[in-house]
Parts: sequence; structure tokens; C-alpha cells
Amino acid sequence: MLCIFVTSVILVVGCSALENGLARTPPMGWMSWERFRCIVDCQKFPDECISDHLFRTAADLLVSEGYADAGYEYVIIDDCWLSKERDSNGRLEPDPERFPHGMKQLANYIQSKGLKFGLYEDYGTKTCAGYPGVIDNLELDAQTFGEWDVDYVKLDGCYAEITSMDEGYPQFGYYLNKTGRLMVYSCSWPVYQEENGMKPNLTKIAEHCNLWRNYDDIQDSWSSVQDIMEWFAKNQDVIVPHAGPGHWNDPDMLIIGNYGLSLDQSKTQMAVWAILAAPLIMSNDLRAVRPEFKEILLNREIIAINQDVLGIPGKRVQQHRNISVWVRPVTPVGYTHSYAVAFTSNRDDGAPYTYSVNLNDIGLTNPAGYTFKDLYGDKEFVLRANATLTVRVNPSGVVFYKATVLP
Amino acid sequence: MLCIFVTSVILVVGCSALENGLARTPPMGWMSWERFRCIVDCQKFPDECISDHLFRTAADLLVSEGYADAGYEYVIIDDCWLSKERDSNGRLEPDPERFPHGMKQLANYIQSKGLKFGLYEDYGTKTCAGYPGVIDNLELDAQTFGEWDVDYVKLDGCYAEITSMDEGYPQFGYYLNKTGRLMVYSCSWPVYQEENGMKPNLTKIAEHCNLWRNYDDIQDSWSSVQDIMEWFAKNQDVIVPHAGPGHWNDPDMLIIGNYGLSLDQSKTQMAVWAILAAPLIMSNDLRAVRPEFKEILLNREIIAINQDVLGIPGKRVQQHRNISVWVRPVTPVGYTHSYAVAFTSNRDDGAPYTYSVNLNDIGLTNPAGYTFKDLYGDKEFVLRANATLTVRVNPSGVVFYKATVLP
Repeated sequence: MLCIFVTSVILVVGCSALENGLARTPPMGWMSWERFRCIVDCQKFPDECISDHLFRTAADLLVSEGYADAGYEYVIIDDCWLSKERDSNGRLEPDPERFPHGMKQLANYIQSKGLKFGLYEDYGTKTCAGYPGVIDNLELDAQTFGEWDVDYVKLDGCYAEITSMDEGYPQFGYYLNKTGRLMVYSCSWPVYQEENGMKPNLTKIAEHCNLWRNYDDIQDSWSSVQDIMEWFAKNQDVIVPHAGPGHWNDPDMLIIGNYGLSLDQSKTQMAVWAILAAPLIMSNDLRAVRPEFKEILLNREIIAINQDVLGIPGKRVQQHRNISVWVRPVTPVGYTHSYAVAFTSNRDDGAPYTYSVNLNDIGLTNPAGYTFKDLYGDKEFVLRANATLTVRVNPSGVVFYKATVLP
Repeated sequence: MLCIFVTSVILVVGCSALENGLARTPPMGWMSWERFRCIVDCQKFPDECISDHLFRTAADLLVSEGYADAGYEYVIIDDCWLSKERDSNGRLEPDPERFPHGMKQLANYIQSKGLKFGLYEDYGTKTCAGYPGVIDNLELDAQTFGEWDVDYVKLDGCYAEITSMDEGYPQFGYYLNKTGRLMVYSCSWPVYQEENGMKPNLTKIAEHCNLWRNYDDIQDSWSSVQDIMEWFAKNQDVIVPHAGPGHWNDPDMLIIGNYGLSLDQSKTQMAVWAILAAPLIMSNDLRAVRPEFKEILLNREIIAINQDVLGIPGKRVQQHRNISVWVRPVTPVGYTHSYAVAFTSNRDDGAPYTYSVNLNDIGLTNPAGYTFKDLYGDKEFVLRANATLTVRVNPSGVVFYKATVLP
């Protein structure tokens, strides 16, 4: 009880929440970028191009394949949906051949399936792929998004003045709110500042954005996932205090089900994204996700860790011999929190690696101990205070437990 | 016809063959190291420790799972099979607890399944894991291997004088031959010289060894596979002329079916190992290889490329935008060779990448063209001289064709 109280105080002091009431847990959904990039040739690639068809298909499959039931909710169009020029009234318009029914009809189709609709824009003069940005039309574009029934806006930061972001991102958020429509606001604001040597003001960012990209785009490779995990671990003391219900650090999309990750590596991404309280935004081809990868994406116990109501991100608490131990406090809370505990491996030396920790050393100090449940298996056991937990971690794999506090 | 003749002349001049008549095509089989390393605690890890049980199981599964039928033949024990000391007569002996029946009985069990038996030793004072090396007992140890009915010897190079290898490796080979038993001789000779700044004399090495490790140990990761592919491409003009029937460059084991490679990456390793005329020595847990990975390892058309009787290794002939094109001349031969053609990707940008080549530019110059057969699919088509071949290559994946010369 004491523990919950302290946590709440920290949240209120450290990062007063965005006032739109959205994203009380990390957003979940599907986005086009990592898998479908800027494919715009619908003649050659009719099933892959950024088009009305792609996003209706994604919405259909989110529902029919069970992803929606598991919590995946937002269908988000990333870059390359726009016409190269604004219309004669200076308004944004989608590419007329690829989005022949316009955005509002697509949004309403997605919403008719019980899902929500997200749309990408860019704070600068152009989007990263060279389409019109919002910089000179902040209010008009926010209005347009509202009129199109958008539920989620990702605002990128290419071709933008980095120094004006501290004013401009809040301003666009203000215009979004002014439409009267509730829209989740995803900001690329800090990552562009980081990359240009500025120290992002995360207190301010958390006041104005529901989530924000801290670091590089994810790519379809284990080395990219490793690199992102490493950055989030190294910067955890700076960034974790700013996250909580309504406002989240974003290590970028889930790439599970694509070409570059093995099954073990996919389990690792899912586990660590749960530990980090990261948005769970898949970018994959939902028509082609093999069953064993789908099982990872639909793992209810791991999703429950990710969506834990306390919204406290975990941290890497130990790193030794290329094994990392990550711990996240979750409900239920007793004498201490319960915890999600992940052991991840950056090793590639063939055999599973044996690793032991004393529970005290990783912060699990409840005298009565915890029930450990293997989240990628069936194993369940009890460990008392000061006990040693020994695991075997596959190369590039993970062992992931929920440790539920015992009375 | 002209083409075959020229090739044969080069082989005879460049690297007169080892006189044991073995390994006319690259050896195929299974070896313990990459997957099972030096696990010696059979109490804790009864199914994984380097033991009689592990190798009998491997032999059983090679046969029952169809690997033997596909050509995988050698069951090879890597490091960590020895007692820490020689016996009272100064002879090598296997660890008595882990190999309670001795080596000859194990060899004969493996041979009774129609397979062949390989054993590891080290040219230096100690093996890499610290067990007795052969340096002071070359003749005795070769004799012992003969008495144990060994069919294949891998001689590593830890704890050895690099400068004495040019004499010592041939000497041990001489003693192996002197036993009267035919044993494939796998030498780590060049890689230790490379790592110590010497230029290996591959002409001499090819005279004395059936295969030789040129470069670093493979690890269970795509980055390791990429690194090895890059080394073999960069050094191809030096190393390829020394390979052919009886003597092969060895880029190390197949790691398909383990933890670190995705399905696409596994297809890439198999394809490039076929292009390189590399030994196909799996190191994996045959009890746990998932069906889609097994299918890669058992792909008869790709194995046929690897085992092509001409024994001419392929080369990387083009590299552009992180796509590499690899071409290997194979049978049947007409106006030109037939060819295996692989497009591999070092990209990780999400979507399959479109890549085109003109057949002439990659050396496919038969005026009547070729029948192209997709070795990872069913597609078959004819392309005439000077035609353009366009493929889409998955991130970290491969497109692999056999182009059969048309009359």
C-alpha cells in the first residue's frame, strides 16, 4: 500500500498527464511503416502498396485472426498516403488513386470493425518521404484530421527546425484538442532532438504527447532490436520517470512475424517491450505471420504485463556475461509489488546459458516470496525471500516470468 | 566442352589432389561443436553433454529423420571428448564416464547405421578446451585413431606453434595415411596462420588436407553468417582456385535449426554454402529442428548444387545496394556450364527488395539461354541470352535459381 502511494506521488510530480485522457495503458495496434515502407506502385505490388486496400485488409485481419480480441486496436497509416501537393484549398488530401474513397470513409470502415484509425504526418515542410508536411498549416491540418475522424496521430520530424519543436509540437497538440475530437498524439519530437545533440525536455514532452519516439527507427534485424534494447537500458534512469498512464516512451514497432527475427529473438522483443511498457504496434504482413509467431503476439499473459494498470516501466537491473535481467513492477501489490522478470541474452555461443540470481539482488524482497509463472511455458513454482533463481537462456532468447507476490 | 577442359587443367596445375581419394564432393554430416560446445556435466544436462549418448542419438536421428538419405554421412565428435590426461601408456583415452564403451564401439555403432565416424583433436599441446593435444605423439595418436576405426579427423590449432604447422599438419596426415585406414583430414591450419598474420600456402594445404578452415568459427547469429559470407567473397580470388574434388575450403558448420537464424536467414546460409562448395556439416539439435528448417536442410536440389561433380566453387559476381549476386558453374554442361545463381540480401529495410541483372553481366552467356528453376519454390521459366532477370529478395533472405543451359 505504501508502495502504491509513493508511486502515485512520483507520477504526479514528475510528469503531469496529458489532458486528453487517452492511452491510459500503452497503445496497441498495427502500423504500415516497418514492413510496407513507401511502396506506392499498386500496379506492381497491389497487395503491398500503401492504399485503402492494405489498411482495410489489416483491419479485417486484426479482427478475424484474434488480434483485436487480444487488445490490438489502432490501425495506423504511416508515411506515403498523401498526394504530392495540397488541394486547391490548401488542404491535405490522400493520393486519389491509392485512397479513392478518401480518409473519412476508410476511418469509418476501420471504426465499424470496433477498431481505431491512426494517421501519420510530419511537423516539418515535408514528410520523411517527401510529401507535404504540416508546418505552415498546423491548425488547418489538425482540423482536417478531426474531420476525417482520426483517432491517433503520429507526427514525425523530418525537414523540420529542431529548435522550434519545443513550441511547435505542443501547438499542433493544442489544435488537435481544439477540434473536440479525442486523438492519441504520438510525437517524434525527442528523437530528432537527441540526434541533433539536444537534450529533450521529457517533462514537457510528457505534458503534451501520449507517446514519443526516443530513439532510432527499428529495422528488420536482431541487431536493430539489440541496439534499441541497449539504448533504453542505458537511458532508463532519465526516461523511465516520465512514463506512466497517458504518456509513454516508445521504442518503436514490433517486427515479429517478418523476415529478420528468429523465434527466440521474437520472444525476446515481445518480453522486453512488455517490460518497457512500450506501445505494442505491430508492423508485419498479417496475411503471412506464421502460427508460432502469432502465438507470441497473442500471448495474453505477456500483453497483461505490458498493459499493467500501474503503468510503471521496468528497468535492466543486472547485466553480466551478455545476459541482462529486466524487472518491472506490476499488480497485484502486497508487501511489495509483483514483478515481471526477464532474462535476455546477447550471446551467440550455441547452447543455452545457465544464469543464477539471488532474488534480493534484483529487488524481489518480499519475505514470503513469490509464485513464479513462466510466461512462455507452463512451469510454475514458489521461491521464498533470498532464494536463488537459476535459468537457462537460449542464445538471443529470453526466459520470462511473472513473479506474483505472496501474502 | 572447352570449358570443362580448361577447368580441369587449372585444378591439376593449381592444387594436386590429396592422395586418399576421399571427399570427391564436399563432406556432409553432423558435428557437435556449434550447438553443444563443451557441455560435460551429464548429471545436469544428460541429453546435451558430449557423450556416447549424444552421438548415438545423432546417428539414429540422421537415419530416422531422412538426413542420411539426403547425403549427411559423417557423425563428428568435436572437442571435449577426451580424458584430461593420457593413459598410463601415453595413449589418448576418451572420458570414461561420458564414453563408457570407448571410441571403437561408438564408431562401429555409427558405422552399423551406414554412417561414418569423425573425431576431433588438436595439433598443439592442448585442445582449445584444454584436453591433451597431439603435438608430441603424432604417430601414436594417428595409430590410435586408426585402431578406433575413425573415418574423419578434424585437427584444430589451439596451443600450437603457428610456424611449425606447415610441417606438422602434413606429418600428422602422413601418419594417418600410414595406418592404412582411409580418413578424411580436416585441417584448421590456414585459419590460425591468417589470424597470426601469415599468408597460408593453400597449394600445400590442398595437397595434404581434404578440407580446411579458412576463417573464424561460426556462431549462432545472422551477423556471424554475414561476416563469413563477406570474408569468403572478399578472398574468393585467392581461395577458390585451390578447391575441387578431394580438397575444399570450409566456411564452418550449418547452424540451421538453432536459435539465432530466421527462416529467411537459414535459406540464405544453405544457398551460399551450396554456391561455395562448402562442407555441409550441421551442428544443431536434431531432436528439435522445426519442420520448415528441416525442409531447408533436406532440399535435394540445393544439396545437388553443393555436391555437383565438377566441384567448382562459385563466387560473388556483383554487389550493389546490399544485394549480392553469387554464381556457381555446375553440370549439365553445354555451350556453357549450367549455373546456380543466388541473390542474397544484407538489407533490413522491411520489404522485399527488387533487383535486376542482365544475364550477360553475371556471366550467363549461352545464346540459347537457360531454364531457370526456383530452388525454394516451384517457379520455372526460360530466359534467352542478354535477358534481364528481376527478383525480389526478402530482407536477409535469398532468391536461389538453378539455370540449366539450353541447347
